[in-house]
Amino acid sequence: MPMLKQPSNKYTRFAPIDLPDRQWPSRVIDAAPRWLSTDLRDGNQSIIDPMDAVKKRRFFDLLVAIGVKEIEIGFPSAGATEFEFISGLVRSGSIPDDVIVQVLTQSREDLIRTSFESLDGARAGIVHLYNAVSPAWRDIVFRMSKDEVREVAITGAKVMRDEAARRPDTDWHFQYSPETFSTAELDFSIEVCAAVMDVLAPTPERPIILNLPATVEAATPNIYADQIEYFCRNLPGRESAVISLHTHNDRGTGVAAAELGLMAGADRVEGCLFGNGERTGNCCLVTLALNLYTQGIDPGLDFSDIDRVIETVEYCNDLPVHQRHPYGGELVYTAFSGSHQDAIKKGFEAHERQNDELWRVPYLPIDPADLGRDYEAVIRVNSQSGKGGFAWVLEQKHGLKLPKAMQRDFSRHVQQLADQTSRELDAEDIWEAFKAAYHVQTPDKHFQLVDYAETRAIDGTRIFSGTIAVDGTEQSVSGRGGGLISSVMATLRDVFDLELEVVDYSQQSIGSGTDAQAATYLECTTRDGRTIWGCGIDQDVATASVRAVLSAANSAHAARASA
Amino acid sequence: MPMLKQPSNKYTRFAPIDLPDRQWPSRVIDAAPRWLSTDLRDGNQSIIDPMDAVKKRRFFDLLVAIGVKEIEIGFPSAGATEFEFISGLVRSGSIPDDVIVQVLTQSREDLIRTSFESLDGARAGIVHLYNAVSPAWRDIVFRMSKDEVREVAITGAKVMRDEAARRPDTDWHFQYSPETFSTAELDFSIEVCAAVMDVLAPTPERPIILNLPATVEAATPNIYADQIEYFCRNLPGRESAVISLHTHNDRGTGVAAAELGLMAGADRVEGCLFGNGERTGNCCLVTLALNLYTQGIDPGLDFSDIDRVIETVEYCNDLPVHQRHPYGGELVYTAFSGSHQDAIKKGFEAHERQNDELWRVPYLPIDPADLGRDYEAVIRVNSQSGKGGFAWVLEQKHGLKLPKAMQRDFSRHVQQLADQTSRELDAEDIWEAFKAAYHVQTPDKHFQLVDYAETRAIDGTRIFSGTIAVDGTEQSVSGRGGGLISSVMATLRDVFDLELEVVDYSQQSIGSGTDAQAATYLECTTRDGRTIWGCGIDQDVATASVRAVLSAANSAHAARASA
Repeated sequence: MPMLKQPSNKYTRFAPIDLPDRQWPSRVIDAAPRWLSTDLRDGNQSIIDPMDAVKKRRFFDLLVAIGVKEIEIGFPSAGATEFEFISGLVRSGSIPDDVIVQVLTQSREDLIRTSFESLDGARAGIVHLYNAVSPAWRDIVFRMSKDEVREVAITGAKVMRDEAARRPDTDWHFQYSPETFSTAELDFSIEVCAAVMDVLAPTPERPIILNLPATVEAATPNIYADQIEYFCRNLPGRESAVISLHTHNDRGTGVAAAELGLMAGADRVEGCLFGNGERTGNCCLVTLALNLYTQGIDPGLDFSDIDRVIETVEYCNDLPVHQRHPYGGELVYTAFSGSHQDAIKKGFEAHERQNDELWRVPYLPIDPADLGRDYEAVIRVNSQSGKGGFAWVLEQKHGLKLPKAMQRDFSRHVQQLADQTSRELDAEDIWEAFKAAYHVQTPDKHFQLVDYAETRAIDGTRIFSGTIAVDGTEQSVSGRGGGLISSVMATLRDVFDLELEVVDYSQQSIGSGTDAQAATYLECTTRDGRTIWGCGIDQDVATASVRAVLSAANSAHAARASA
Repeated sequence: MPMLKQPSNKYTRFAPIDLPDRQWPSRVIDAAPRWLSTDLRDGNQSIIDPMDAVKKRRFFDLLVAIGVKEIEIGFPSAGATEFEFISGLVRSGSIPDDVIVQVLTQSREDLIRTSFESLDGARAGIVHLYNAVSPAWRDIVFRMSKDEVREVAITGAKVMRDEAARRPDTDWHFQYSPETFSTAELDFSIEVCAAVMDVLAPTPERPIILNLPATVEAATPNIYADQIEYFCRNLPGRESAVISLHTHNDRGTGVAAAELGLMAGADRVEGCLFGNGERTGNCCLVTLALNLYTQGIDPGLDFSDIDRVIETVEYCNDLPVHQRHPYGGELVYTAFSGSHQDAIKKGFEAHERQNDELWRVPYLPIDPADLGRDYEAVIRVNSQSGKGGFAWVLEQKHGLKLPKAMQRDFSRHVQQLADQTSRELDAEDIWEAFKAAYHVQTPDKHFQLVDYAETRAIDGTRIFSGTIAVDGTEQSVSGRGGGLISSVMATLRDVFDLELEVVDYSQQSIGSGTDAQAATYLECTTRDGRTIWGCGIDQDVATASVRAVLSAANSAHAARASA
């Protein structure tokens, strides 16, 4: 590969903003902003196959359902199809009273008129005027002076004012965007915005929305925050303006720019669900909203069924939500690593024990259940996983809480299987491995319990007498011990010359009520000092223990056979 | 959808850092950091099917090829497969002299030993020790006091020191990570790092790497920068430490956190290509490096063939690079919107005219050619596109530079087609639409030129005499005018009663040399005042003009026929 040479004069550093007394780095966001979705406009204009009316309507309904109150529904002057969708939606009466739609227009009289016409009959509407104020656009695209650019904005604002006055039945709101704000001279942006405000005469009660786009992200996100703070501090009549952010993600920091911009004084954020939009996309509203949620701030947007949101967004945009997209991606709650799995498992256990509801599960910044995700996908097992993972899977799927030492024993089996298969192991793989490792519910084992009875002798000892199939041939056997387990041990020793010593024993219930089962775990040593584990599962607690002993016996037999 | 209720006590705000005199917001990044790729470790442990040795090797070779000098190649004590890959890579001799490999280990004597063993024979190596210092991990996962946690780190550091001393043939470097730094008490992290430094005695010439992970991203990125600046300012012996960042993307701001962290004083960044890694992924090294590149800073990493990088990364991770991923995504240089296309087109034209090489093409923060991408994909046409898009396509693909007024005329045809097909139009679609609209190189048109001669009369007028097939029937025709075009016009008027008046005429060459062709554009009005466009393309400039007249004639005929 030829080494990429950094051209010496092709790119330059973005000039920092002179704002030494900036306040935003000491601020925190303590309330949700106003949200505007531009999925149907900025989003729709950047997908390969733009949405048809059916998809647009489905997306609109989704936005309403999750609680978005300001929705940009298109660019009415772009063409007949666009206009018809917009006016059709207005006429359909399906815009809820607490939702306001917004349309975008360039600053040309005929286009502004068309935009107002498209909202004919609406209860309320935001007409969003823009023109380019930044030097590259002035010089390269439009070849206009600053005065001419300002004049374009003023002229457009006047048309807006007059069109609104001509249509008094709608509650009109005005929005103005100095494009591309983030690469324009700040003082000139302020000058043009102030000129627009002079025409539209906003008040604190009926403010104008000034939207400040990072149309192309061109600097680190702190620069955008500086720009926003500078703008807010220097705009005449700041109290009559709603400052709106509109970030893009060209440098991968669109969400950060919006967050720092809110700290810098903005009131409103424009963006798209899952960051759709031109090129690298707009600010992702899902991420921003749930970032607030995890700080205990109500975002006012509902992602409690995030998979349904994803389904609609993917269908309408025909673009996937990436596996690692914050909050929504398929893998973002998944731990494959053993140490992570172990920590998460302990976190869930601690969460159940604790008295408050404070969420502090390691590696999970949000409770997946809050978004309608279940815990099953949290822990997945592959060759990079240790014991934490399968232990979780066994507990979640089968209710088995293996003792720690037994987890270590079983981890060898799982690791072997993972290395062999070289793929992810699912819950079924792990369950099969467990059954095979401990001869649980497997048909072809050496010792198979057929039935048994236990009796208590006069001297207090227990007598185990039962039928055991040995490699398929049934044998009547019996033995005597201090308790049930030791009587089965004695039987094994006396009848089969198999001597096991119990090191540790534990029992747990699985489930509750009439379906409850018991699981017995048995750690034994063999005559030659090997540690052997047994597990027995049965509806009857005594039988679970008998099965556990035979499970250990089968392991001991297998070890002896392979030795 | 049931409204998501913000639980009142489940999540809390991240406590801000008390650093009123923070310096980082006024700083700019002016040099590339040291890069460490953890694709083979943090990346590999978080994919569904971890890489086999062949994939790992291919990824390693890619990292070397793009210029990464520090590569974390695994967790040697995780298992035999992992150990074998690491020691195999070392023994293979394929680690270049200027590349240093790194291995990760928990702070347990046997694991640290295994880690050193895995690098047996290496020229140099970084052993990366970590233990958890943060409260959630201390309380929930390990149930250890602060003193115990610090002791774990010190003990591990001692083992590292002694193991390194026992193996003097390798140039050992040490790295320590206080996990999870971003949610730990800053003073305690500093205390533990200082204790580790006391054991390892780093110097400015042989510094320790202190890696400060945002293991889980838990706050806005400015908080991480505050943490880094606080750490750098308060660490005893700062000059003997390389401060390394390791961010994750749980809040979608992992790249931002790394950038602000660099401004706050860090020297090194750990991450993965295209942001692979646990959950939402690690910091994307591609994005961070190319962010520097677009500021005129040489990142020291080579992405001049970014598609090759993507191909390998997608193959090894079995995860896609998203269409909107900064710099690498399929759609990030694409404009569908007409106004964007128009601005880009003007930007490219200005770029060709300008005297310096400064890149200032609207909507493109980087020249796609620098990454091995071509310009063809930049502009794509669908129903959201205006005239800019197809004009660009016609120019790029067919060398046709349509006059502005003709672009407007043709845009109606394109918009109609886009609305009809409701899908993206490719270059072929647009070319077919153009040929159909202006009867260029189409077989079944009304007037078809068969051949012609032109002669100059004694009075200076031109005489056109030729054969024209009318709906397939050849006719010998002739006419006289002031020039070639008017003589053809006269022929049309005299023979076919078709009167056209030329409003505007332009001609351009297509290509150069012997293959060069000429295109003639003709704006005419018909007798009833309609504007009609014609276009003729031919190797001969005169014939191109004749064809242009007949093209206009065909349009006029079609208009008359449909009227």
